[in-house]
Amino acid sequence: MPAPDPDSLVIDGVALGSRLIMGTGGAPSLNGLGAALLASGTELTTVAMRRHNPVAPAGTSVFDLLLQQQIRVLPNTAGCFTAREAVMTAELAREALETDWVKLEVIADEHTLLPDAVELVDATEQLVGRGFKVFAYTNDDPVLAQRLEGLGAAAVMPLGAPIGTGLGILNPHNIELIVARACIPVILDAGIGTASDAALAMELGCDAVLLASAVTRAQDPVRMAEAFKHAVIGGRLAAQAGRIPRRVHALASSEMEGRPDL
Amino acid sequence: MPAPDPDSLVIDGVALGSRLIMGTGGAPSLNGLGAALLASGTELTTVAMRRHNPVAPAGTSVFDLLLQQQIRVLPNTAGCFTAREAVMTAELAREALETDWVKLEVIADEHTLLPDAVELVDATEQLVGRGFKVFAYTNDDPVLAQRLEGLGAAAVMPLGAPIGTGLGILNPHNIELIVARACIPVILDAGIGTASDAALAMELGCDAVLLASAVTRAQDPVRMAEAFKHAVIGGRLAAQAGRIPRRVHALASSEMEGRPDL
Amino acid sequence: MPAPDPDSLVIDGVALGSRLIMGTGGAPSLNGLGAALLASGTELTTVAMRRHNPVAPAGTSVFDLLLQQQIRVLPNTAGCFTAREAVMTAELAREALETDWVKLEVIADEHTLLPDAVELVDATEQLVGRGFKVFAYTNDDPVLAQRLEGLGAAAVMPLGAPIGTGLGILNPHNIELIVARACIPVILDAGIGTASDAALAMELGCDAVLLASAVTRAQDPVRMAEAFKHAVIGGRLAAQAGRIPRRVHALASSEMEGRPDL
Amino acid sequence: MPAPDPDSLVIDGVALGSRLIMGTGGAPSLNGLGAALLASGTELTTVAMRRHNPVAPAGTSVFDLLLQQQIRVLPNTAGCFTAREAVMTAELAREALETDWVKLEVIADEHTLLPDAVELVDATEQLVGRGFKVFAYTNDDPVLAQRLEGLGAAAVMPLGAPIGTGLGILNPHNIELIVARACIPVILDAGIGTASDAALAMELGCDAVLLASAVTRAQDPVRMAEAFKHAVIGGRLAAQAGRIPRRVHALASSEMEGRPDL
Repeated sequence: MPAPDPDSLVIDGVALGSRLIMGTGGAPSLNGLGAALLASGTELTTVAMRRHNPVAPAGTSVFDLLLQQQIRVLPNTAGCFTAREAVMTAELAREALETDWVKLEVIADEHTLLPDAVELVDATEQLVGRGFKVFAYTNDDPVLAQRLEGLGAAAVMPLGAPIGTGLGILNPHNIELIVARACIPVILDAGIGTASDAALAMELGCDAVLLASAVTRAQDPVRMAEAFKHAVIGGRLAAQAGRIPRRVHALASSEMEGRPDL
Repeated sequence: MPAPDPDSLVIDGVALGSRLIMGTGGAPSLNGLGAALLASGTELTTVAMRRHNPVAPAGTSVFDLLLQQQIRVLPNTAGCFTAREAVMTAELAREALETDWVKLEVIADEHTLLPDAVELVDATEQLVGRGFKVFAYTNDDPVLAQRLEGLGAAAVMPLGAPIGTGLGILNPHNIELIVARACIPVILDAGIGTASDAALAMELGCDAVLLASAVTRAQDPVRMAEAFKHAVIGGRLAAQAGRIPRRVHALASSEMEGRPDL
Repeated sequence: MPAPDPDSLVIDGVALGSRLIMGTGGAPSLNGLGAALLASGTELTTVAMRRHNPVAPAGTSVFDLLLQQQIRVLPNTAGCFTAREAVMTAELAREALETDWVKLEVIADEHTLLPDAVELVDATEQLVGRGFKVFAYTNDDPVLAQRLEGLGAAAVMPLGAPIGTGLGILNPHNIELIVARACIPVILDAGIGTASDAALAMELGCDAVLLASAVTRAQDPVRMAEAFKHAVIGGRLAAQAGRIPRRVHALASSEMEGRPDL
Repeated sequence: MPAPDPDSLVIDGVALGSRLIMGTGGAPSLNGLGAALLASGTELTTVAMRRHNPVAPAGTSVFDLLLQQQIRVLPNTAGCFTAREAVMTAELAREALETDWVKLEVIADEHTLLPDAVELVDATEQLVGRGFKVFAYTNDDPVLAQRLEGLGAAAVMPLGAPIGTGLGILNPHNIELIVARACIPVILDAGIGTASDAALAMELGCDAVLLASAVTRAQDPVRMAEAFKHAVIGGRLAAQAGRIPRRVHALASSEMEGRPDL
């Protein structure tokens, strides 16, 4: 039995060996999804409860897949537009999946899929009151993130860009502000398009990265999952290693002294 | 014996297992450098000939270190301001190190350390004529890159930003143009500050990344070297995997149909 | 009497000839402020009620200055942390200044000076109910902007970056989203550092730009005020003129046909 | 007679009242071009010699238009691929237009329209030797810009992005480096898409901006020309006025002291 990684991400007492959290949305097939999940090394995967078919034949659902790969499920409330809907969906998830973890999504409309700050605050308060561990999907507003933490969220999940756009992190400044003030894990969620976006998220100080479409809709999902595995590790290490400062002027890496006489 | 990696970078018939090329400049100690090189997984390392002390006691030079780690040496002409100086330095390197590979640096001044296009063209032509395999350190001008290739360079090494600045890739558009037109390896050289910069370079289509200060001057060089190892692998995989397109509007990853009636 | 500018910004039935709105904060002297306001061409200026000294000797207050320059006053609630404080400040302003226009600022903390979404929504609702014309200073969240409009705000004023940072527009994508969905004026507020930032705001479709420190704290406030006057006009014209599309590849402006035989 | 503007751009002893230099390429009609030139306020306009038809009927050429508007002509060598071609074109221009000013373009290929550094250096040297005032269109390489100045160029004209792309200034860092070291006028040329790009160029320290397609191919060229007129003035004033520094943290513009007791 290997020693636990001292750099594990611990949430609610659970240590996660990988800081890449995958979503299942957008996957064209269960087989392809399974291979991508495996390649990603993820230990936590979010699944939309609205896609959950409680009467699916055994062995054919995404939950069987996760069970088989020993990946923890993080049910999400995708598709909910109000706190009321989100709370009911979370309760259904808790009953069906026997977990009180929930990724809370309360979106404002189907066009932007952006979170609705007011409903989000309401839902977080209710869900925390009901004993849920709330992973709150939020916009990149540092004030809202802090309010969600104050309400008892287990983690805040600011977006880099709107869901599915692949635009990366549109406002790194806000992500840095959120990280600087948070005492709970900050998980960059939504907007990731490619490996360097994920590395950047970690360099900004995020504790983990969540993505779905960037893998499931890539031309080669398995290879892209592997790319993200490396990018998240690399970004985490870089954040810890203490990068060189940005300089306006050049600085020779090689000393000029001792140059041979030409 | 492991099968050769089919994705190796091949230059002049030599297959390199790692697409991260390290420089040795800026390393505070030989021991620290050795550990960083090991962590980086590099198989090719550039050394300034001007730092080479041919009468160093055995076992104390950077060359002993590379020999010991079985890392190929790429001598560079750092500190040369004219084609004439660069050619003489390359000849010294060939004689001392028994390699006809040379990273050609001809800089314009010590303030910017930027390459001098005119001297660079001249030096490339001369060195190719003398049988060298020229890795040409150049600015990010697509026209100059193509000219260097036309003159017989073995690889072009456009900068992301001036040496030692850590500003990353200031003009990704130019790097993409260079890659799109090149038939020889394109190696991003100079300006890299952190892991996401290296991942981006690979995503833009570069064949490899060269860096020195970003590792040797980091607070924890070994950890940073490991960060770059992952970032380059991740960026390479992402480039091959075919990223999702950037979209202006959001796109749900989870289908909305089948949502339970609330 | 000149004909009214058909491109005036009309808010609450009032036509403003200039789309540059100035703040008075940060001005070192009343004289300097007066000259800068004149140079800016502004017709609307926001003043912090908390700075208002009702017992100042006649002719020495910023209000006398505005009266003299025939600039309309937009009182703001800077320094308020709760809806309750903001509503009381707005009522004081209405009584003292005889205007029901108010720039609503409800900030979360003195460190970031960022608006607090929840208090802002609450305050907007109350102030609209009391008959105020609410200019709501908000973060750049498109969903929140739409909610404020739905509550009856007269204008939304998303930030480009935190107050006083001069970082420009950190997330142009969000500003574009806000503009695309708004039926009330969108006024870029906070974060502007220099002329090109203001031009960009207008090009993104904003109806006006509000700034204070960028002028009052510039080395030469009068000249900077004039710079912004031109930048806002230029940006507005550019937005109307229909810019050329961004192209990945070059396009000759001069036709090559008819070239003389050399 | 108005006093000369003390902030005129002086080149070769000629004072130009406007720092916006227009090109004529891409204009769909002579009438439209005339109106746009007028709206731009330009006093210097570049014309491709290759488009020059020496046998055009009187009153129908772009040269008649410029003569009529009292706009100085800056003939350019667009379409030349070698120093030899460019020198011959410049000589034709001098003879036909009786000016020794020439905008020197030596491009590498029709795909990128990027300048060819080697041919450009050669042509500059020859043209200066022949008594021309050379306005050298160059890439954004600070070293090349300095070399052109050393060869006697009257002005250097670095590109912001490839011709006709409208991508703006891809590498502001290089433009700043060029400006910091130049003792001759630096004119941003190529790549400008919209007003804020031109303002930024001036803020970076450029002495003037040259553009063509951004006006001639805009949906409303006259309005866009007016936009650029304001943007260049605004950017120039901002550069002189001394902008506020960029700050990571917020800074209240309104003092908090003296806040009324609520």
